[in-house]
Amino acid sequence: MSLLIVGTVAFDAIETPFGKTDKIIGGAATYIALSASYFTKKINLVSVVGDDFPSDTIKMMQGKGVNTDGLQVLKGQKTFFWSGRYHNDMNARDTLVTELNVLADFNPAVPASFQGSEFLMLGNLTPTVQEKVLDQLKVRPKLVVLDTMNFWMNVALDDLKRVLKKIDVLTINDEEARQLSGEHSLVKAAQKILVLGPKYLIIKKGEHGALLFDKEQVFFAPALPLEDVFDPTGAGDTFAGGFIGYLASTEDISFENMKRAIIYGSAMASFCVEKFGTERLLNLSQNEVDDRVQQFVELVQFDIELI
Amino acid sequence: MSLLIVGTVAFDAIETPFGKTDKIIGGAATYIALSASYFTKKINLVSVVGDDFPSDTIKMMQGKGVNTDGLQVLKGQKTFFWSGRYHNDMNARDTLVTELNVLADFNPAVPASFQGSEFLMLGNLTPTVQEKVLDQLKVRPKLVVLDTMNFWMNVALDDLKRVLKKIDVLTINDEEARQLSGEHSLVKAAQKILVLGPKYLIIKKGEHGALLFDKEQVFFAPALPLEDVFDPTGAGDTFAGGFIGYLASTEDISFENMKRAIIYGSAMASFCVEKFGTERLLNLSQNEVDDRVQQFVELVQFDIELI
Repeated sequence: MSLLIVGTVAFDAIETPFGKTDKIIGGAATYIALSASYFTKKINLVSVVGDDFPSDTIKMMQGKGVNTDGLQVLKGQKTFFWSGRYHNDMNARDTLVTELNVLADFNPAVPASFQGSEFLMLGNLTPTVQEKVLDQLKVRPKLVVLDTMNFWMNVALDDLKRVLKKIDVLTINDEEARQLSGEHSLVKAAQKILVLGPKYLIIKKGEHGALLFDKEQVFFAPALPLEDVFDPTGAGDTFAGGFIGYLASTEDISFENMKRAIIYGSAMASFCVEKFGTERLLNLSQNEVDDRVQQFVELVQFDIELI
Repeated sequence: MSLLIVGTVAFDAIETPFGKTDKIIGGAATYIALSASYFTKKINLVSVVGDDFPSDTIKMMQGKGVNTDGLQVLKGQKTFFWSGRYHNDMNARDTLVTELNVLADFNPAVPASFQGSEFLMLGNLTPTVQEKVLDQLKVRPKLVVLDTMNFWMNVALDDLKRVLKKIDVLTINDEEARQLSGEHSLVKAAQKILVLGPKYLIIKKGEHGALLFDKEQVFFAPALPLEDVFDPTGAGDTFAGGFIGYLASTEDISFENMKRAIIYGSAMASFCVEKFGTERLLNLSQNEVDDRVQQFVELVQFDIELI
């Protein structure tokens, strides 16, 4: 089934303890789309860049099954740029530069040919921009997943809460879950957040894995223990892309299948952090993905028969 | 098979955001023995207390299958006392009081009737005291598990490293693994630590679960997401007690069975933190334990068939 992805396509410059990059390709929608492309080739992208964005990259994405008819290329304007520095433990990062550029006035337009997309991934953006996309869809998608961050909780909480009423799955990290709910316990936080609208909540805990909640159930997926986390940029978006890409490819939005989707998302994220930026996501083989998922199976599966 | 437990039997006074206790029963060996008693009734305890320690508690432990012939009760002396305060996130704690008392000159004596114990749990103690127990055993146990902490890495690293050469399983937390190995990555840390002697390493990550490593494999068990962690005191020891108690009861020290043992240990630890001190460990039913283990199964199990 077709998957509509909305989010940033951007330039990033990244410093980690392992090195630094000049401007490389980044953006939430980029990571989401690349990750999802390993599961489905019916991807529709809504985003915006300036005319400084390389057409080769757009062609590369098209080659991976991404329809870029909804990617606005604004003449004489510059692409969104973010620069950040990670520290030794990779959990904390400093933002060095944020140049909104084309993102400042982003007015998303869903092409007519994108109508009817059954799956919608709203990458991290101003909540009102996310809402504008939802409002343009004539038929509500089968599943709407929204990613957001603490920044929007600080500056646009009412907008965010309004959008939360319209979605199915919310993905945020543990600190954001605590902020949004006012609860330290993630179990209590989840219960409060599920009252705000989403039927499912995914709490991302970085190297400590991810939790999936609905009102009755909880599922936990670990992150793969890695020798090195080279660059965590985009890991959460890559996770989301694998998650919704797998769901779109299997056309099954049951809790049981969401468990599998989270494992696939975690596997994709474990590749993402192995190199700078999107590099590791560009040329994975099906075998590499399957082997990685098998590592997750071996990591957590045990066999207990209760007496 | 019989299980020999060496460690502290103590008084604790605990403050958490939920309340505070006067002197209550604590100590690593107490938690280990209570937890293990749900799996095996052949428990031999080596420890020391003063004559201020309540005989009712000793009788209670005997009632749970703990042979206290190796528990020295020193006349005119006082039991080891520790007092600590936890903060909101429960991951950090301040030690308020440490009175070593009988522990200052603890000279462990293994009774003749304890010779031949097939499983040995060396709870956190001075490494030379742990070693003295090992040296008194005429037949090496089938499995030796050792718990230690950063304090001994700071003040008795050479002693600790000597003892590590004689054990099978080391249990430490993530920060201790990093300190002992000099590696931030837990995967790299594990590889270095396994060279020091232990065949297996368990890295305890508190609310983030636990990892089991041998030289070739890794297994991850989550902690159960709880509404409230009331008091984390003793959780690591309760985990260790469930782990070795399950192994002793099943007489199987394969990696596959250690996975199960870690789930049982995690289940026991999830009870421990629900009330102050040992309270929750005193009267669990087999059904409660089984239900809790079933929750772990439901928390992590998924069903992926790779194509």
